[in-house]
Amino acid sequence: MGAPLTVNASRLLRRLDELGRLGGAPDGGVSRLALSDEDKLGRDRLVAWMNEIGLDVRIDQVGNLLGFRAGESDEAPVLFGSHLDSVRAGGRYDGAYGVLAALEVLQTLQEGGVRTRRPLLMAAFTNEEGARYAPDMQGSLAFVGDLSVDEALAVTGFDGSNFGEELRRIGYAGDFPCASVRPYACVELHIEQGPVLEKEGICIGAVEAIIGISWQEVTLRGAANHAGTTPMDLRRDAGLAAARIAAYLRDLAAELGPDQRATCGMIAFRPNVINVIPGEARLSVDLRNPDEAVLRQAEQRLAAFIQRVAAEERVEAETRRLVYVAPARCDPDVVAVIEAAAASLGLSCRRMTSGAGHDAQILARRFPTAMIFIPSRGGVSHSPAEYSSPDDLAAGANVLLQTVLKLAL
Amino acid sequence: MGAPLTVNASRLLRRLDELGRLGGAPDGGVSRLALSDEDKLGRDRLVAWMNEIGLDVRIDQVGNLLGFRAGESDEAPVLFGSHLDSVRAGGRYDGAYGVLAALEVLQTLQEGGVRTRRPLLMAAFTNEEGARYAPDMQGSLAFVGDLSVDEALAVTGFDGSNFGEELRRIGYAGDFPCASVRPYACVELHIEQGPVLEKEGICIGAVEAIIGISWQEVTLRGAANHAGTTPMDLRRDAGLAAARIAAYLRDLAAELGPDQRATCGMIAFRPNVINVIPGEARLSVDLRNPDEAVLRQAEQRLAAFIQRVAAEERVEAETRRLVYVAPARCDPDVVAVIEAAAASLGLSCRRMTSGAGHDAQILARRFPTAMIFIPSRGGVSHSPAEYSSPDDLAAGANVLLQTVLKLAL
Repeated sequence: MGAPLTVNASRLLRRLDELGRLGGAPDGGVSRLALSDEDKLGRDRLVAWMNEIGLDVRIDQVGNLLGFRAGESDEAPVLFGSHLDSVRAGGRYDGAYGVLAALEVLQTLQEGGVRTRRPLLMAAFTNEEGARYAPDMQGSLAFVGDLSVDEALAVTGFDGSNFGEELRRIGYAGDFPCASVRPYACVELHIEQGPVLEKEGICIGAVEAIIGISWQEVTLRGAANHAGTTPMDLRRDAGLAAARIAAYLRDLAAELGPDQRATCGMIAFRPNVINVIPGEARLSVDLRNPDEAVLRQAEQRLAAFIQRVAAEERVEAETRRLVYVAPARCDPDVVAVIEAAAASLGLSCRRMTSGAGHDAQILARRFPTAMIFIPSRGGVSHSPAEYSSPDDLAAGANVLLQTVLKLAL
Repeated sequence: MGAPLTVNASRLLRRLDELGRLGGAPDGGVSRLALSDEDKLGRDRLVAWMNEIGLDVRIDQVGNLLGFRAGESDEAPVLFGSHLDSVRAGGRYDGAYGVLAALEVLQTLQEGGVRTRRPLLMAAFTNEEGARYAPDMQGSLAFVGDLSVDEALAVTGFDGSNFGEELRRIGYAGDFPCASVRPYACVELHIEQGPVLEKEGICIGAVEAIIGISWQEVTLRGAANHAGTTPMDLRRDAGLAAARIAAYLRDLAAELGPDQRATCGMIAFRPNVINVIPGEARLSVDLRNPDEAVLRQAEQRLAAFIQRVAAEERVEAETRRLVYVAPARCDPDVVAVIEAAAASLGLSCRRMTSGAGHDAQILARRFPTAMIFIPSRGGVSHSPAEYSSPDDLAAGANVLLQTVLKLAL
């Protein structure tokens, strides 16, 4: 057995550069919001490349771009891809990398004359980011059948636009039916968007779980009063209660192990005056865990702590849930294939959890799915400063190639 | 010895009502900002009353209203009074009560034909609140000579007005020289503005100290990052650091005893987004103690804690001092006279600390000074809901009368 087949890394990097200029800014950032003129430019370019390498290109009813390559059999296909849309002032790797690496894998197979038993299917899903239309992961939700086409087309954007109209306007209202493909397995290659791989000096992450998310807003109501004349033991300090809850999140995460994340990103006091004890305070809580039972436990412990603080500080507490997304377990067999692919290429690899949401989270509800991560410099994403090195970009694409070959054989 | 001399309580209450309507709102609140048209109305009314009872009325160079009553000797006078100005939407008792009770004491002595050895001097100081012009306690500062007349007149208000011009406009730019009177003793009668007396069911507070105040702004700079993809141990969470500092204030106060107050009234996170670890956080700290050494110790312990948190959370901390007002010790002899006066009237009395600033704090720098407090319902002040009962208002005025008599004999 000779050296393994590898992708053309310089072609991949060139295409990343070229796509990054569509909706790109001079600072290296990209604004390619779903169904915008910039998204259309990116789609047009991708479809042209897909046609160039002879894929059977289909546009489905919500604008997902699908590129089929026949296999030796008519068995269920192996799907791999990601998304083309970005947040406002995002980076050039988030999503685009997984799509262009999928294209590169297929082109490498074409050029090498490699046939697979199963058909291969590359995908670029519509509106993964949710920066213009909610819900996020809209295209993959429709692809798996968890969002009806009618519902998807009816969505109104934050800018007042209609999803269906915008889809027609940019020429991507296709007719390929949603929920009609049932892949044998799905793989999404993506930048980590976190600091773990870089910090540990590891090249490849084999994602075994995608974190679940609970967002809550906690409101505390006490009594505004004079900071000088009110003794400490007579206070009903809503701000102190909020600070105790925010500070507790660190302890909560520690109690529940290294997979638990707990963050207070927003806070507000009223009246917010230097010499007035806050009469009202509001804070947000972002809890994440890849294990749903533990995530529920985190919610329960937080609720118990809030009740304790409310009693101790003699304030009223009200908790409102804003978002709950269940965690997704990746398929252990697909994860093992990714690990084996990395090992076969001599690349360091660790199992890990995705702390962000991805189309793979939706695909995993129905099909055996896993993700491949490569390092993000400084863990930075959703920013013009987003960066992954050429070596890592090439390595990830080669792991995707080997993973797809193994799954499709 | 017969029953002690007592004030005419119904006259005092009537005048409180009448003065409360000058700058008053239908909800019982009062807006009589320093040197406003409403302040002029209040001053005009007070001066008319002072003239009616035969006082020698003088207006000094910063508009302090002084009413002299001759004694049997030319010794240093006993001064008592407070201020007429209010905050915006304040109450009708803060300041006005101490001024009108002083007037009532003098009228009671006139009507009773009571002579005192020392001259008596009632005072209504200009701009105690600082709601329109900073510094607060401006009139008493000029009265004791700690603020020059030129400096006082040059002050620009938050509304852009000039103090000196406004003083002339309302007709209260007097010529009586500041820093020319050296009282034998000073007494200020005031509502407590806190909950202690009401909660303990005590009628009179003999104020032995006026709290010192340290205001600081703490800024913490970490790294904004993704709440999902950033492991807890790799964070530089400025918001968590701020929450820990705000929550620590309770412990700090407990460590330093019941006289220590510590409050976080203001807080802000950046970017203040639910799924972003705060990269920057800012909070205010209000520390108060009647003992300067302990107040300094509170500042030092806070600084040490901030340094510890900054190191642990790997954030940068910057502390800016906004205000420092040293505590004032009241004169023990004057405090003892107040206690004896309350006892002679059969009124419950406790020694206490003022948690708010007062003109007496400035007078105490130069002259033997103390304060008399009466209960504030719910501890509420600087609000239309400010309230003290007719019985307590009468009791406080009678304690002032007996205190003045004892000091002036």
